[in-house]
Amino acid sequence: MINSSLLRPYHDLFVESREKILADFFTFLRFQTISSESAFQPELQKCAHWLHEYLSSSGFNVELWETGSHPIVFAEWLGAGPEQPTVLIYNHYDVQPVDPLPLWQSPPFEPTVRNGQVYARGAQDNKGQCFYVISSLASQLKTTGKLPVNVKLCIEGEEECGSAGLSALLGPKQDRLRADHLLIVDLGLPGPETPAICLGTRGIVVMTVDVQGAAVDLHSGSHGGVVYNPNHALIEVLAKLRDGHGRITIPGFYDQVEDFNVKDLSRLHLHFDVERYEQKFGTKAVGGERSFTPIQSAWLRPTLEINGISGGYAGNGFKTVIPAQACGKISCRLVPNQEPEKIGNLVADYISSIAPKGCSVSVRIHPGGGKPLRTRMDSQVVQAVSQAYQELFQKPCEYTLEGASIPIVAELARTCKAEVVLMGFALDSDNMHAPNEHFGLDRLEKGFVVMPRILDILRA
Amino acid sequence: MINSSLLRPYHDLFVESREKILADFFTFLRFQTISSESAFQPELQKCAHWLHEYLSSSGFNVELWETGSHPIVFAEWLGAGPEQPTVLIYNHYDVQPVDPLPLWQSPPFEPTVRNGQVYARGAQDNKGQCFYVISSLASQLKTTGKLPVNVKLCIEGEEECGSAGLSALLGPKQDRLRADHLLIVDLGLPGPETPAICLGTRGIVVMTVDVQGAAVDLHSGSHGGVVYNPNHALIEVLAKLRDGHGRITIPGFYDQVEDFNVKDLSRLHLHFDVERYEQKFGTKAVGGERSFTPIQSAWLRPTLEINGISGGYAGNGFKTVIPAQACGKISCRLVPNQEPEKIGNLVADYISSIAPKGCSVSVRIHPGGGKPLRTRMDSQVVQAVSQAYQELFQKPCEYTLEGASIPIVAELARTCKAEVVLMGFALDSDNMHAPNEHFGLDRLEKGFVVMPRILDILRA
Repeated sequence: MINSSLLRPYHDLFVESREKILADFFTFLRFQTISSESAFQPELQKCAHWLHEYLSSSGFNVELWETGSHPIVFAEWLGAGPEQPTVLIYNHYDVQPVDPLPLWQSPPFEPTVRNGQVYARGAQDNKGQCFYVISSLASQLKTTGKLPVNVKLCIEGEEECGSAGLSALLGPKQDRLRADHLLIVDLGLPGPETPAICLGTRGIVVMTVDVQGAAVDLHSGSHGGVVYNPNHALIEVLAKLRDGHGRITIPGFYDQVEDFNVKDLSRLHLHFDVERYEQKFGTKAVGGERSFTPIQSAWLRPTLEINGISGGYAGNGFKTVIPAQACGKISCRLVPNQEPEKIGNLVADYISSIAPKGCSVSVRIHPGGGKPLRTRMDSQVVQAVSQAYQELFQKPCEYTLEGASIPIVAELARTCKAEVVLMGFALDSDNMHAPNEHFGLDRLEKGFVVMPRILDILRA
Repeated sequence: MINSSLLRPYHDLFVESREKILADFFTFLRFQTISSESAFQPELQKCAHWLHEYLSSSGFNVELWETGSHPIVFAEWLGAGPEQPTVLIYNHYDVQPVDPLPLWQSPPFEPTVRNGQVYARGAQDNKGQCFYVISSLASQLKTTGKLPVNVKLCIEGEEECGSAGLSALLGPKQDRLRADHLLIVDLGLPGPETPAICLGTRGIVVMTVDVQGAAVDLHSGSHGGVVYNPNHALIEVLAKLRDGHGRITIPGFYDQVEDFNVKDLSRLHLHFDVERYEQKFGTKAVGGERSFTPIQSAWLRPTLEINGISGGYAGNGFKTVIPAQACGKISCRLVPNQEPEKIGNLVADYISSIAPKGCSVSVRIHPGGGKPLRTRMDSQVVQAVSQAYQELFQKPCEYTLEGASIPIVAELARTCKAEVVLMGFALDSDNMHAPNEHFGLDRLEKGFVVMPRILDILRA
């Protein structure tokens, strides 16, 4: 139910166009835009061209900016004139890989509605959040011929693989990206009825650890006890990166981490319901440093997580092999003052220093790490979103932090010289990055309704 | 070159029938008999029926003994009469899985000859070794209508997945399997021109470690530092199973291991050329316990090897996920006096005792573990093979041990009440269990020639 009369016209527009909005959303979701796997390159191209057509047919001036891999969709409508501010809105159309595929209840690229939720890879992250932005502004523009302020849309295709293309274009496209306010619409809410704005994200750096043993896989009977098994080398190295108290052991890792101060903490809604969390995810919230609470660990402390391990045969049955290779994937989430490149090098150097002699152990730091970000609560754009949320939810807006990273955000904010707001309608129950990702149709509607209202408030 | 006149007739027979022998061998290799993966069940059935036809058309009386999974091909020719001894020859027609498939230079089930070597999964282990046995004896029987002694062939289809079927049938088929001499033709030579007989194998027990975290994969940004990552739980547990000196840390693991005695050692050819080994396999021979040499580690000491690990995404690119599950595969090679079941329980109990609290860690001990085996150097059958080898290679036979396991051997030897010889023409360069497995056509010929000669020597 939309109670505020200020939101009513946008709500009516949604109700009138609902069928077409959903049809277009489903088309958007069907593109298999997995950016980290090169086999899907053509799907990203198709999706970018579809977005081009969708936006230009609504009155936006649209360009595809080619990058080394997947194009950026850049759209603008500057009809509000120079006396009005310019709002840049960031989204992405690429998605995470889908495995393990067998755990999906419906095919990841065939959107399926169950209990008011759309199930598909990207349904929430970030196609759902992107689509309420573009469908709402496109509908406004089509219906009324105008928007309250000047609008630029930047929809990239490499968020899930490091945003290298956008990062490289920030310099050359600096003037085109300039804006007064930057809306990053890739964040979430603590609960479906709890308005909240995120005041910061963690940074990230990701690495691959490659272990090479013999030239070929060897029989573990004949060679067991002779060669140094790459699986052993890998786990021995990885197990040494954290101590028994969950603390990362890499020398210098915590050196730049700033201490919490009470004033900062008092502005945040540090609520974390352990019981609800454990029930929801079926696991205990005991993965962080013992000396911090789960929410402190997630928002205010850096992490080192092993996102993937493989080596030898781990399928059904058994294969008595000593593999030639083993591989580990590591990501570190970073908090203010930690530099991705510096932390990546610390991890790589430490791994090199502890690697056993019997194998070759190498670390590749992936490009596209992202710095952590903190935004200003008192900025005009944060307050505009806060007001619009209050109208939408009929209750005051909370302030949170986010443990995840949107690596490009800090760079983009610097380039467009705007104040930033981190916002969105994601919920932690959406299975983001996991099988059966989903997004509520009610939230698609809320996003559709609130976006033009935010622009109204920002109008000079 | 075959120099001995005693071997000449068998050599001539090989040369005459070479084309047909190879055609039949390639047919045998084309069956995709991966016993540990249930999808291949029909291929194992087809292969067993093909063996049935091959042997019965040559004069053997053949039966397929049904097991829970893949049938045993049992063939006998008892025409030598009760005054002659009975020789039981053991082989297997099942093979290991083929992954990593991209590393094969030619398809694993399309035998391809390069430089006198047949490349295929099973080319050596054990189809190659099985085929010189059956093609040689079948040719003899077809050509001359008889064999020097009574012969039984037991060709199973579950060696690579634990021999559960044959193990269960040992009791019921005890009379059929009875023999005076047991030839296990699944072993190898130290070099292509070095005759050798193996005096023992290590036992084996294999286990799967399953780690369960949250109900679904989680985003490592939002949940990193909150949940206990199953990848971390797995590597922390596995890394604790061996210490920095390569010694297994599981309490009681070494309790039953007998000390070496000088007399035993003096009978063995403990030669191990570290430089040659490292050059051949492209890795250092430093994987065992620091206080033992590589060959002592491989032949006389038990091992614990991690044969497989998996958890999360470890492919190309990167996936910032905390997986719901992680999995490890462990095998222990056992030396005399170590019991597979007892050692399996020690490992499982230790893992349970050190598992972190944040995940659920469980250990499954796979059925079909095998006891270690030592045979008698002075037995009639060992000496017969030694003599035939000396005729074939024109040099004295060496005595070795084998680090690998043929789990069923000790049980089978007890059942058929025979003296055992462990023999064969495998080389450690055959890529057994690995991509590009191969077997030399020269060795196929040697095996074909020597098998009937061994039977001649055993004739009363």
